[in-house]
Amino acid sequence: MTTANNSRPLDVLDKAKGNKVIIKLKGGTEVTGLLQAFDLHLNIWLEGAEERTADKTIKLGSTLVRGDTIILISPASE
Amino acid sequence: MTTANNSRPLDVLDKAKGNKVIIKLKGGTEVTGLLQAFDLHLNIWLEGAEERTADKTIKLGSTLVRGDTIILISPASE
Amino acid sequence: MTTANNSRPLDVLDKAKGNKVIIKLKGGTEVTGLLQAFDLHLNIWLEGAEERTADKTIKLGSTLVRGDTIILISPASE
Amino acid sequence: MTTANNSRPLDVLDKAKGNKVIIKLKGGTEVTGLLQAFDLHLNIWLEGAEERTADKTIKLGSTLVRGDTIILISPASE
Amino acid sequence: MTTANNSRPLDVLDKAKGNKVIIKLKGGTEVTGLLQAFDLHLNIWLEGAEERTADKTIKLGSTLVRGDTIILISPASE
Amino acid sequence: MTTANNSRPLDVLDKAKGNKVIIKLKGGTEVTGLLQAFDLHLNIWLEGAEERTADKTIKLGSTLVRGDTIILISPASE
Amino acid sequence: MTTANNSRPLDVLDKAKGNKVIIKLKGGTEVTGLLQAFDLHLNIWLEGAEERTADKTIKLGSTLVRGDTIILISPASE
Repeated sequence: MTTANNSRPLDVLDKAKGNKVIIKLKGGTEVTGLLQAFDLHLNIWLEGAEERTADKTIKLGSTLVRGDTIILISPASE
Repeated sequence: MTTANNSRPLDVLDKAKGNKVIIKLKGGTEVTGLLQAFDLHLNIWLEGAEERTADKTIKLGSTLVRGDTIILISPASE
Repeated sequence: MTTANNSRPLDVLDKAKGNKVIIKLKGGTEVTGLLQAFDLHLNIWLEGAEERTADKTIKLGSTLVRGDTIILISPASE
Repeated sequence: MTTANNSRPLDVLDKAKGNKVIIKLKGGTEVTGLLQAFDLHLNIWLEGAEERTADKTIKLGSTLVRGDTIILISPASE
Repeated sequence: MTTANNSRPLDVLDKAKGNKVIIKLKGGTEVTGLLQAFDLHLNIWLEGAEERTADKTIKLGSTLVRGDTIILISPASE
Repeated sequence: MTTANNSRPLDVLDKAKGNKVIIKLKGGTEVTGLLQAFDLHLNIWLEGAEERTADKTIKLGSTLVRGDTIILISPASE
Repeated sequence: MTTANNSRPLDVLDKAKGNKVIIKLKGGTEVTGLLQAFDLHLNIWLEGAEERTADKTIKLGSTLVRGDTIILISPASE
């Protein structure tokens, strides 16, 4: 394994643009969707978003997730 | 699908101006209304707003939602 | 309906000055009163303010509400 | 009633200096006292302060209340 | 009583240096000790500090209390 | 033992790059993975990440952990 | 007792470098270890760290504690 000495943590999102990401929010909610754009506050624009809580899934479509409520973001298939 | 490489997450709100948006707030409340304006803090001005909690819907009319309490914003029909 | 393309969210408060507003706070409290002044942090000065919780109403009179605790602000009759 | 078009929300505290104010804090505590000084963070210096919770009153005397924990401030007799 | 028109809220701490102060923290804990130093964030250095919760007292000795967790600070005998 | 008089706390992460770290989050969740990159906000990019709660382990793979939700970070074998 | 009129609260940490400190975190967790470095956000680098909750002690070794979650820091034997 090679270490990424000069990379920054948000680079992992740059590589995920256009692909499906899983976002875990404070409070236990999970949002998935195709990553369109993000900024330094980790505000995230998703297309085809879905919100999953313990007991249901809701289709959201185009969605802006506020960075402040995000715990972690994981590209779905990398 | 084409990725939006140079776009910013708040662009999704620009496109939703004048249309209905659904805003999910910390604590489980949901507010809907016609998006009039927003700023970088995600303060949102809605017209014809309604607040929905688990057990009731309240008509608010013209409303300013503070960005700090927002989890996600989704244009209703995009 | 015409969209307000160049307006900012706090404009809705400018138009409400001198009129009654309803402020919902984190934790379920609601404060009403005549809007005298506000700043960019959404600190709000009300006259004739009343605080309503689930089980009582308290007359506060002249009151400064800290912006940090506000969820949303709605002019009462617009 | 005349609206205060050019005033700022903290002006209501300027007028209350030397007088009794009631401060409601996050978590349900209430502090009263004579307002000596405040700053833009709403840090408040009170003299003759008392802390009231649901079941008791504690005399604090000279007290600095941190602005961050304040929900609202109301001059007691204005 | 004379009002302190040009004073700032942190002046009350300047006058308490070297003396015992009582600090109430979010979550119900109380810390007492001799005030050595403080900064604009209300970070506080105490000597001879003690932590009191509902059911016990712990001797801490020299202690740095982070300003962010403080609700109020009261000089013990002023 | 020699004290590290001129070092900064984030230096401990610099030395851990490419190695396994354990991250404890607010709310009790623990995330482990190989540290790729971090920034001053403590946003962390992990590869081969796993999320462990009290009752299960979830493979996350490539993951960005938001600094705001982190309590502590510990290199696994140092 | 002499008061420390020109000292700053973080000076107490400077004197504790290389020595054992006890850090109390929001949520009731306690972390101890040898203080290596700290910054203005109170991010803390410990060596030989241990985490103590009500019912167990976990050896962490080298650890970075995020300042944001800290309530207070106390040098163990000063």
